[in-house]
Amino acid sequence: MKKNVPPISYGDYLQTAGLLNLQRPRSDEFNVKAHDELLFIIVHQTYELWFKQILHELNSVMSLFASDLVHESDMGTAVARLGRIVEIQRLLVDQVSVLETMTPLDFLDFRDLLYPASGFQSLQWRLIENKLGLRSDRRLKYNSTPYHAHVPPAEEQQMLQAEKDPSLFDRVDAWLARAPFLSNKDFDFQAEYGKAVRTMLENDKETIIRFAKTNEDKERNLKQVAEAESTFAAITDPARYEELRNAGTFRLSHSALQAALLILLYREQPLLSLPFQLLTKLQDIDELMTTWRYRHALMVHRMLGSKIGTGGSSGHQYLKASTDQHRIFGDLFNLATFLIPRSELPPLPKSLSTKLSFQN
Amino acid sequence: MKKNVPPISYGDYLQTAGLLNLQRPRSDEFNVKAHDELLFIIVHQTYELWFKQILHELNSVMSLFASDLVHESDMGTAVARLGRIVEIQRLLVDQVSVLETMTPLDFLDFRDLLYPASGFQSLQWRLIENKLGLRSDRRLKYNSTPYHAHVPPAEEQQMLQAEKDPSLFDRVDAWLARAPFLSNKDFDFQAEYGKAVRTMLENDKETIIRFAKTNEDKERNLKQVAEAESTFAAITDPARYEELRNAGTFRLSHSALQAALLILLYREQPLLSLPFQLLTKLQDIDELMTTWRYRHALMVHRMLGSKIGTGGSSGHQYLKASTDQHRIFGDLFNLATFLIPRSELPPLPKSLSTKLSFQN
Amino acid sequence: MKKNVPPISYGDYLQTAGLLNLQRPRSDEFNVKAHDELLFIIVHQTYELWFKQILHELNSVMSLFASDLVHESDMGTAVARLGRIVEIQRLLVDQVSVLETMTPLDFLDFRDLLYPASGFQSLQWRLIENKLGLRSDRRLKYNSTPYHAHVPPAEEQQMLQAEKDPSLFDRVDAWLARAPFLSNKDFDFQAEYGKAVRTMLENDKETIIRFAKTNEDKERNLKQVAEAESTFAAITDPARYEELRNAGTFRLSHSALQAALLILLYREQPLLSLPFQLLTKLQDIDELMTTWRYRHALMVHRMLGSKIGTGGSSGHQYLKASTDQHRIFGDLFNLATFLIPRSELPPLPKSLSTKLSFQN
Amino acid sequence: MKKNVPPISYGDYLQTAGLLNLQRPRSDEFNVKAHDELLFIIVHQTYELWFKQILHELNSVMSLFASDLVHESDMGTAVARLGRIVEIQRLLVDQVSVLETMTPLDFLDFRDLLYPASGFQSLQWRLIENKLGLRSDRRLKYNSTPYHAHVPPAEEQQMLQAEKDPSLFDRVDAWLARAPFLSNKDFDFQAEYGKAVRTMLENDKETIIRFAKTNEDKERNLKQVAEAESTFAAITDPARYEELRNAGTFRLSHSALQAALLILLYREQPLLSLPFQLLTKLQDIDELMTTWRYRHALMVHRMLGSKIGTGGSSGHQYLKASTDQHRIFGDLFNLATFLIPRSELPPLPKSLSTKLSFQN
Repeated sequence: MKKNVPPISYGDYLQTAGLLNLQRPRSDEFNVKAHDELLFIIVHQTYELWFKQILHELNSVMSLFASDLVHESDMGTAVARLGRIVEIQRLLVDQVSVLETMTPLDFLDFRDLLYPASGFQSLQWRLIENKLGLRSDRRLKYNSTPYHAHVPPAEEQQMLQAEKDPSLFDRVDAWLARAPFLSNKDFDFQAEYGKAVRTMLENDKETIIRFAKTNEDKERNLKQVAEAESTFAAITDPARYEELRNAGTFRLSHSALQAALLILLYREQPLLSLPFQLLTKLQDIDELMTTWRYRHALMVHRMLGSKIGTGGSSGHQYLKASTDQHRIFGDLFNLATFLIPRSELPPLPKSLSTKLSFQN
Repeated sequence: MKKNVPPISYGDYLQTAGLLNLQRPRSDEFNVKAHDELLFIIVHQTYELWFKQILHELNSVMSLFASDLVHESDMGTAVARLGRIVEIQRLLVDQVSVLETMTPLDFLDFRDLLYPASGFQSLQWRLIENKLGLRSDRRLKYNSTPYHAHVPPAEEQQMLQAEKDPSLFDRVDAWLARAPFLSNKDFDFQAEYGKAVRTMLENDKETIIRFAKTNEDKERNLKQVAEAESTFAAITDPARYEELRNAGTFRLSHSALQAALLILLYREQPLLSLPFQLLTKLQDIDELMTTWRYRHALMVHRMLGSKIGTGGSSGHQYLKASTDQHRIFGDLFNLATFLIPRSELPPLPKSLSTKLSFQN
Repeated sequence: MKKNVPPISYGDYLQTAGLLNLQRPRSDEFNVKAHDELLFIIVHQTYELWFKQILHELNSVMSLFASDLVHESDMGTAVARLGRIVEIQRLLVDQVSVLETMTPLDFLDFRDLLYPASGFQSLQWRLIENKLGLRSDRRLKYNSTPYHAHVPPAEEQQMLQAEKDPSLFDRVDAWLARAPFLSNKDFDFQAEYGKAVRTMLENDKETIIRFAKTNEDKERNLKQVAEAESTFAAITDPARYEELRNAGTFRLSHSALQAALLILLYREQPLLSLPFQLLTKLQDIDELMTTWRYRHALMVHRMLGSKIGTGGSSGHQYLKASTDQHRIFGDLFNLATFLIPRSELPPLPKSLSTKLSFQN
Repeated sequence: MKKNVPPISYGDYLQTAGLLNLQRPRSDEFNVKAHDELLFIIVHQTYELWFKQILHELNSVMSLFASDLVHESDMGTAVARLGRIVEIQRLLVDQVSVLETMTPLDFLDFRDLLYPASGFQSLQWRLIENKLGLRSDRRLKYNSTPYHAHVPPAEEQQMLQAEKDPSLFDRVDAWLARAPFLSNKDFDFQAEYGKAVRTMLENDKETIIRFAKTNEDKERNLKQVAEAESTFAAITDPARYEELRNAGTFRLSHSALQAALLILLYREQPLLSLPFQLLTKLQDIDELMTTWRYRHALMVHRMLGSKIGTGGSSGHQYLKASTDQHRIFGDLFNLATFLIPRSELPPLPKSLSTKLSFQN
């Protein structure tokens, strides 16, 4: 132990005295009996503590990705820290079960004392959303006012700043777009790969025609494939892609999307191994954000029925609507549409596969 | 050990030789390399085994509730068996994470070999839905044909029979409707309780007026309370209730809904303790059914993007749409709207509280 | 909303400003780079918050059981609150996985700054142990000094007070011992039941003789049954029981053990339904306490190898030794030895079964 | 879809008819009422299915490691497949909760019909243990006969073969021992690192002297550090190491241990990133094996008390004893003893760090 470091006790280190003095049930203050209010407070305080940890990890990953050229030696760290966020999110989802041990009747004991406090005012949750890259124009409106209108000005300022700053989405997009492995003149990835996708989609059409039970089915499913074909055409046509991107079909830039595809398809190449893990963790995070929202919406339905929330929202309907609307890395899920079987994968030219492997 | 019982080995008891011989990867048959197909098969086989267990418990609970007068000594058993279903469902939700270790690319190695097999054809899953009480007129259509059109005739027969037979929902409804504790001439529950609800809704209106940030918010939220008032009026007006029930607002019969309310409000009465637990387990089951659907939809999105499913469905969109549409015990969630704070609860008359307690 | 209640915001209600200002990494103070110290702090702070909630529930259940005659209307509440503790404990066990995302190397970045702080100093954890009923003479020694020697005097005082006050174990023991359903002159439970147990043990002996592969096996297993017979003889002989109790074989009083047996065997009787659930929750709590200890020991092994802990303990060996030594409701597990098949169960006389059912 | 592939249905693909016909409750056969036996069977059958999957992954990883030079492009695959085993194990641990919904009384309804079947006879479980690398001389004896004496000869043969074949432990050991990054003449890793460890252990001694509450504590803890010093001396002295290895302190070969240390300490180097993840997954697997054993032991205690198991074992005591005794990758945990803070880490020479990075 370093000589200049004074000893410290468990309680001082963790500030337990302060920590355990921050639970202030309104029912105590107003002399109402409400045994379960403490649970309600502690569930939310642990959420806020975990949010702080998530932000700590997010900030660090964002700074590792601050320049477009991410150091190879930082990739493992970035993946591990995103992996930690995933573990925390799993806990946050499970934690809903603890809150559900409070019944609606128990909640009513103190619900009237909480107006107009609401989870919608959580600064850290908004920062997480904004730093991940939730776009303000995609946000469902909370009542008729914007989400940041319900908090103190200093907090509103932070929320808006996080909205303006480059998000994790933006940084990952920029990193992908400049990935050095993309530019290889020996390899016409698009041409080879394009052929394989078109074959796959042709096969899908045959399958539909072969197995459709009714004409209606056949036509609807063929229409879906036709849409995939049209979207796919855009992937190899930057101008058309940009149109679709403006229309909201894609969010990633054209080069970034291409790089992501290449990573997903050639993940066995040593240099692509960690990037592949990174994209996977981003999908995990996106999926667990939306799962948490969904569990949360069910819990609110159970607790309130169709009563309005303490913050004046229309409750579980709002929350459910947000599960899909507020997704951030949806492009990575949609890319699965254009993956092709490994057996159809064009082999990499030697010059590229060398570039993607180790020195030794 | 009983003398007439011959010894048995672990393998014979569990039929492991047969069990472990039932995994037949199509990739083996067609000589394609697809390491992950075994996982795909085993995930689904364990699902089917758990479905069998869920059906075993469901059938037993349904037979305990077969007559409208459920024996008090069977209530504990019913609650425990529903509780087991809940534990199994928690496992089923977590199990999705195991399947997600298979990436879209791994799936593509054998996806082409599975047409037109589809999870939509699972007989047991349909039986679970139908026995719980999913109404055929509430089902989303699977393609343009009914859900039972894609299976062998003997299985279709079973599905349709389960649709016709009284479901768990029906049996619980009948049991609630005849609950002996409802008929008590000393207690005008509706009058007393009605006053309390109306007060609560009046308070909600004041709260809205006090805290609304904009006129738009105020009006929308007041409208929501007005709807609650109108729905509530129906709760005490059998004719009006029947109208709303026909319109789909409620599914429980009028008497059943009243009994459920009474149980939720007076759960501390010894006789109501197990009935309260029963209603809670039904909510848990409903919530976990829908959570599983949601997780499943996300997994499919991740695996297929917007490719069509092997069964020809339009994939994750369909699954997501079903999460809300296919709920069964939603009434129990909606009842939370009309719960009142314990402090406003009309006290039970002595004659009734005696009836709800033990002999000793 | 009540008119005299002033509005409150989310942040003020949850004291987020204070809460999020209580993380004080020593690495910041001493200007060392240690990204993961925040995780270490937050994991422990969330543990402490959950411990507060567990104590809140424990205290309330203990006060419901403060007099030996527990109100029937409180039993449901007691079971629900113990059930909440179980849900929280599940979370605490899962939470270890989050801490394990910190590797040993990450921990070393700041381990030197923590001396001599140690989780052994957690006041709340000690209170939980003592209130549940961990006996001071069963405690493993922490180094050569007692567990309460390492904390500030005021905290030591609280620990010792909780050791002296009647614990949940004591209260449950007293409640069981006076359970009114035990005294019934029409029913010689012990005689009937004794016969059934003896038959079961005889069967076990035959089974051993029939299936033993070697003489050594046969003898060892017959010896185990002989011990069970001898222990069982004590269950029906209060004086002998007291001897075994003094020797540490049992901890429950003789009457309490009898009542517990009766509850386990006749749990279908309506009056015994909630008591049965209560005993089950106590087993769950005991099991999850020890599971948490075990997971914690593994995590420490992983983090430190055989380095000494920051508090100077010998680390994971100590923790592992405590898993078994520190169990509290082990008697409830051991009772399984003396349960008999339902088919052998002596029927209850009418007078008793009436007493155990409802008025109606 | 390929043209030569005939269509298949869900039921045929998953062999559901066969699968759902393999549950043969003995209670049905002998006409005894035992509702819960189906659960008992299904829990074990799902375990066996998951065991098959674990073996599938283990076999594939072992074949990737069959030659000492593992292809870089296979490392990602190996890590992913071990990661899948971890996800499955998490499920297996959680699954114990489902079995615990069966109470001891429910089990007694059919326990008598199961002799002498026992989980100890599970072929696949033994194969998993042996393939991971459980050494036969470390096994606790099951009764007085070896573990493989209780199964049919063909199964015994398989168990013994798996004992003889190189295990995953052996293959990882060989791979580590020949890791090319170890041989670098510009870097005297041992000298530099040795200095850092000795400094750390000196610091530990000072810390002990500074904070020990009693002489007894001080001496015991100093003795522990002295042991670490002596073990550490062996790490840099192959002959001494071999002695300790023969004595059971270590199991990894000397070179493998050194390589593992290097990987843990320099995991940020791109080439070491996946090897580090591999070692972490092996720790996870070891930890979850032992956690599962522990949960299982608690469950058996709960179900049987101190009754003998159906296979004639002495039950939960045996199982608990095996948790520690049967660990396989304990060396990786113990290595934490000799990790040093990153700030003390000797920098890699340029020649080596180049070798550990990518071509580009």
